Amino acid sequence: MKKNVLIIGAGGVAQVVAHKAAQNNDILGDIHIASRNIAKAEDIIAGVLEKRALKQPGGVLRAHTLDALDVEATKALIRETGVQIIINVGSAFINMSVLRAAIDTGVAYIDTAIHEDPAKICETPPWYGNYEWKHAEECAQKGITAIHGAGFDPGVVNSYAALAVQDYFDDVDSIDIIDVNAGSHGRYFATNFDPEINFREFTGTVYSWQQGAWQSNKMFEISRTDDLPVVGEQTTYLSGHDELHSLSRHLPVKNIRFWMGFGAHYINVFTVLQNLGLLSEQPVTTAEGLEVVPLKVVKAVLPDPASLAPTYTGKTCIGDLVKGTKDGKDREIFIYQISDHKEAYEEVGSQGISYTAGVPAVAAAMLVATGEWDVRRQANVEELPPHPFLNLLNHIGLPSRIREGDDDRALDFARDDAGKWRVA
Amino acid sequence: MKKNVLIIGAGGVAQVVAHKAAQNNDILGDIHIASRNIAKAEDIIAGVLEKRALKQPGGVLRAHTLDALDVEATKALIRETGVQIIINVGSAFINMSVLRAAIDTGVAYIDTAIHEDPAKICETPPWYGNYEWKHAEECAQKGITAIHGAGFDPGVVNSYAALAVQDYFDDVDSIDIIDVNAGSHGRYFATNFDPEINFREFTGTVYSWQQGAWQSNKMFEISRTDDLPVVGEQTTYLSGHDELHSLSRHLPVKNIRFWMGFGAHYINVFTVLQNLGLLSEQPVTTAEGLEVVPLKVVKAVLPDPASLAPTYTGKTCIGDLVKGTKDGKDREIFIYQISDHKEAYEEVGSQGISYTAGVPAVAAAMLVATGEWDVRRQANVEELPPHPFLNLLNHIGLPSRIREGDDDRALDFARDDAGKWRVA
Repeated sequence: MKKNVLIIGAGGVAQVVAHKAAQNNDILGDIHIASRNIAKAEDIIAGVLEKRALKQPGGVLRAHTLDALDVEATKALIRETGVQIIINVGSAFINMSVLRAAIDTGVAYIDTAIHEDPAKICETPPWYGNYEWKHAEECAQKGITAIHGAGFDPGVVNSYAALAVQDYFDDVDSIDIIDVNAGSHGRYFATNFDPEINFREFTGTVYSWQQGAWQSNKMFEISRTDDLPVVGEQTTYLSGHDELHSLSRHLPVKNIRFWMGFGAHYINVFTVLQNLGLLSEQPVTTAEGLEVVPLKVVKAVLPDPASLAPTYTGKTCIGDLVKGTKDGKDREIFIYQISDHKEAYEEVGSQGISYTAGVPAVAAAMLVATGEWDVRRQANVEELPPHPFLNLLNHIGLPSRIREGDDDRALDFARDDAGKWRVA
Repeated sequence: MKKNVLIIGAGGVAQVVAHKAAQNNDILGDIHIASRNIAKAEDIIAGVLEKRALKQPGGVLRAHTLDALDVEATKALIRETGVQIIINVGSAFINMSVLRAAIDTGVAYIDTAIHEDPAKICETPPWYGNYEWKHAEECAQKGITAIHGAGFDPGVVNSYAALAVQDYFDDVDSIDIIDVNAGSHGRYFATNFDPEINFREFTGTVYSWQQGAWQSNKMFEISRTDDLPVVGEQTTYLSGHDELHSLSRHLPVKNIRFWMGFGAHYINVFTVLQNLGLLSEQPVTTAEGLEVVPLKVVKAVLPDPASLAPTYTGKTCIGDLVKGTKDGKDREIFIYQISDHKEAYEEVGSQGISYTAGVPAVAAAMLVATGEWDVRRQANVEELPPHPFLNLLNHIGLPSRIREGDDDRALDFARDDAGKWRVA
């Protein structure tokens, strides 16, 4: 049993995490939020208090200034606050610093995206092998619970994949993770989370796991069109994404692909910026001699993703289309989740993309707190029991569904008489 | 009679000016090239020598380092070199500094574009009234020849307009200046001259002179399609441009408009950059706290316009479509010039856009040197005699033509028995 959480970051996802942690502070205990910019953390706290989101009123909820690249400062804050669980939802550039601080202080660590070096795009797959997995042995030796990629995708979709392999198939041939945002923010152009991280996803090689090997493609080279629940017919594009880099190692599945939905307008803007070199993470020098990273300027002119939330409408649909065989017959299922931007905003003040990323991290923290996921080693989400995680998400804002042929139903869970989780 | 020229700037246009001045150094005398970056000036000189372009071999041809915003440094260079004519083809931001130095040292001044304040886009019309014309009285008092806008457009098109008013019409109803670049640089996207100056032309209000008053439109709001000589059918867009701001004052014409040709791809890229705020001249601050002007970063990632020249193919067509009455009958003429990118590169190492902008400035300098345009006051090109200017251009690389109905002929000039210029 662990308690007291430190949330690192104060963006849209951190806001969701703070609200959701507050709604469950009977389990999680004290809540601390640390950011380079303490004003943003204080704003989040004000929003949580305004919505009276603390389940146990009067529980600790405090903002801190922290440069999370400063490992010693992070360790000091961990010790000073007495937190036992870190939810890192800051920039993907800080993961290794925060993990170091967690290991050194013996606390549990949870993140939602793969570590990135600011100066490198799209390193050699599997990406987890370049940073996270190098700490596997040390985590195991020291009994550190470190859960990587516990957002929605990566995160919940990894759990869907594990569930499919465990409960629905004898053999799985392919897992196609499909991520569609059918919402509208009403702006000329915006990204749904940090533009820098968002664009970095799409400027490198598109790696996919096909026939048991890494295949390379370019962005927007390969598309598919599916008739999806609620959001209808949607075109998505083969994209590189974190979860492929752990699922390919942990699941006995030859084909694992990630598909992201883009409209023609997004693709046009992206293509123009990409072709001009404005999405580059490598600095250029202006005529005046100023050295500047183009991507950081693009980020500076784009809307703050958090600013989109108040007027965001429509729904997201993210799920795993899994094909294989069961009892000698071909089978195809789609396990998915639908979120609504407006409902998310009303509940936690963030749009749906932040909501789907933030809630699972809190669910993971709650399972670490209760011990069910406190595995005292490093793990990707598909290595952890899917049932308690998806069951908890059903109850804290992200209910899952499953579609098979004409049948489309809630994905409910229960424990059998022996106390073992099963699909209800 | 004046001689010895100082070329300020070392971009694509300056390169053309240097070559063309060298080809006429019997009239112009010593040639000096000054740039913040002396290496660029030295490269231009090396190119001139390589092409054996000096008409009088052994004539002075020298590079200098100069920050032309430093008026005292510019004055010192003028005195040290003994130049009597300045051809300013540097950034539009330096005009007023260089003019100040010219007035203080008593030398002639020629530029090719209107002065701009880096922090302001599209000031109140007429633009010449904001900067250049404020020096009219001082120039007249001190006998300073200052010729503004002596490139192609502004420049030659102003002279076409003056010629039409003087020789072809009793009354002119409209002058539509049409600028089409039907060439191809083979890159994804590039501007034909300094991207910063280029984009600044199109991000503000589109001012045109209609019914004797300034009319405001947005860029790409109004288009026309013409069947033009050599380049064929072309769509052009009502744009703001320097020459309207002097022609509207100096010619008795109610409608003066400028139309620039753009392809769908250019418009798409421009629209994306514009809508995102990346063409802004106002600084933004990155997440890391770096203050940077987006437009300068766009400039930094785009191809150097000079780099386009070696592979540039196709032609430009720039001219004045003039409508009015002559001897009681409606009349419509198109006075124009066709340039070829490849021929320009072979002659002077620059593409056609730079060529059309640079050659007229040298023609103006030659007319100042010979006295025909040494008017000892400030003047826009339409205030000066068009015949000797267009005649000289016919002989130094920019021959003009005139189309009227089915008749399309070279626009040749001769002096009559009284020594007065007339169309041949």
